[in-house]
Amino acid sequence: MTLELDWQNIFAECRANIQKAIEPCLKPCDEPQPDLGIGAGGDLMKPVDLASESAIIETLKKHEVSFTLISEETGVKKFGAASEGCYIITDPIDGTTNLTRRLPFYCTSIAVSSTPYLKGVYAGMVADLVHDQTFMAFTGRGAFCNRKHIQTSNIKRLEEACVGLDLGAYKTGLDLDCKKIIQNIKHTRHFGANALEICYVASGITDGFIDLRSKIRTTDVAAGFLIAKEAGATITDQANRPINIALDPKQTLNFIASANSEIHKQILSLINSDA
Amino acid sequence: MTLELDWQNIFAECRANIQKAIEPCLKPCDEPQPDLGIGAGGDLMKPVDLASESAIIETLKKHEVSFTLISEETGVKKFGAASEGCYIITDPIDGTTNLTRRLPFYCTSIAVSSTPYLKGVYAGMVADLVHDQTFMAFTGRGAFCNRKHIQTSNIKRLEEACVGLDLGAYKTGLDLDCKKIIQNIKHTRHFGANALEICYVASGITDGFIDLRSKIRTTDVAAGFLIAKEAGATITDQANRPINIALDPKQTLNFIASANSEIHKQILSLINSDA
Repeated sequence: MTLELDWQNIFAECRANIQKAIEPCLKPCDEPQPDLGIGAGGDLMKPVDLASESAIIETLKKHEVSFTLISEETGVKKFGAASEGCYIITDPIDGTTNLTRRLPFYCTSIAVSSTPYLKGVYAGMVADLVHDQTFMAFTGRGAFCNRKHIQTSNIKRLEEACVGLDLGAYKTGLDLDCKKIIQNIKHTRHFGANALEICYVASGITDGFIDLRSKIRTTDVAAGFLIAKEAGATITDQANRPINIALDPKQTLNFIASANSEIHKQILSLINSDA
Repeated sequence: MTLELDWQNIFAECRANIQKAIEPCLKPCDEPQPDLGIGAGGDLMKPVDLASESAIIETLKKHEVSFTLISEETGVKKFGAASEGCYIITDPIDGTTNLTRRLPFYCTSIAVSSTPYLKGVYAGMVADLVHDQTFMAFTGRGAFCNRKHIQTSNIKRLEEACVGLDLGAYKTGLDLDCKKIIQNIKHTRHFGANALEICYVASGITDGFIDLRSKIRTTDVAAGFLIAKEAGATITDQANRPINIALDPKQTLNFIASANSEIHKQILSLINSDA
């Protein structure tokens, strides 16, 4: 039954309801948002995260969806009788730090899976909550931005490429050697909302995204990965292995998402060459 | 006479005229913008850069300003009889790569100086051309965003800070050791339009901005530095020296702009400690 749901319209309704729900939380910078403890994914929760999560849950309930929620914020919860066949993986607000600091880059990420594994994801939405861009994908039907088909860029050389790079390694002890990356990729960027930055690869705005921290969670990437793959991206882990992990708020990963296989090879070779 | 000009309104008119002038250049990504050769600052010029520069020149001429233009694009040019007393330092579009790739982050930067040195800058505007934010400052009168006073953040510890970091070191041979920075600063970002990212420090959106590449030019920072300083920022070079260099399209610098002296000390100590 779940497969017959009109996810395109349910996603659009989620987006509209999230936008309404978070409005009261978009305060000026001098009124800090209170912390609400640590969420299931390990980050501090803010009122805006929970407001967005509630909007998603209420929208799905209205459509009588039975589902298991796997959320960055409140963890795993079942809703309705047939919840085993439909897993909703969400980061209700990706880029909460940006939002609370008035940096205009944050989004919501919602994926739907038939199994509790990444491979089971068959529908996904990443909605930019600042700019009017809503990315969606459905397995085998392609990827879309504002309902228009998108595809990855044709840029084949790092000498012309613009690539996202997450260096958020605070207190991890990680020694991310980015020397070769910054010396060999024309432009690097980091906007601080990875789900959206993966969709930039999907729509040809950037040519790749690199996150080697092994800190990011499936709640951040489940929708973005489907959107990027349906748009033609190549996605593997740092060792060039396909990624199929459990959809769990604590499960982490590293990954490289590239516009095409040529860019992917070059990024892997930069990362894995001897220093 | 120049000092008596109403720069607040001239800047606002420049912004409006730039926005109109660049509209035809905001093409979808699949229609690449032609290259128009190398500009005075050493980067490739695009039609959008020249459209913005022309809009600035025409607006100043309309107000009968005599000035020496120091531009990232076409270099140094004199307009009017008394051009020695008024230097206009501009990067007509900072973030041209973002603009041409549809990354929603680019701005225009215009500064006015009474001398051909950075210290002579007495008025400046950085206008975000995507979001409705226009930053201005006038020596001794403070800094403003959309005509409201702004000031830098009170965050005093890198453990809570969000700091911009320009790692654009493509083919420079530079070995920017960012290990300590990424392990000791809570959040780092790089949006790709440094003039605007300096204004984020001014308005408390971020707590600092680090650019150690010695590649950036005065055309990119002249307005931003005045705005940040008038908002309370501390700005020095990597060796903690004040920065007063010639306003020349080829003159480059490195710098750290911090929300306050405590953050500045911590960033300097991270950068200058032994590896």
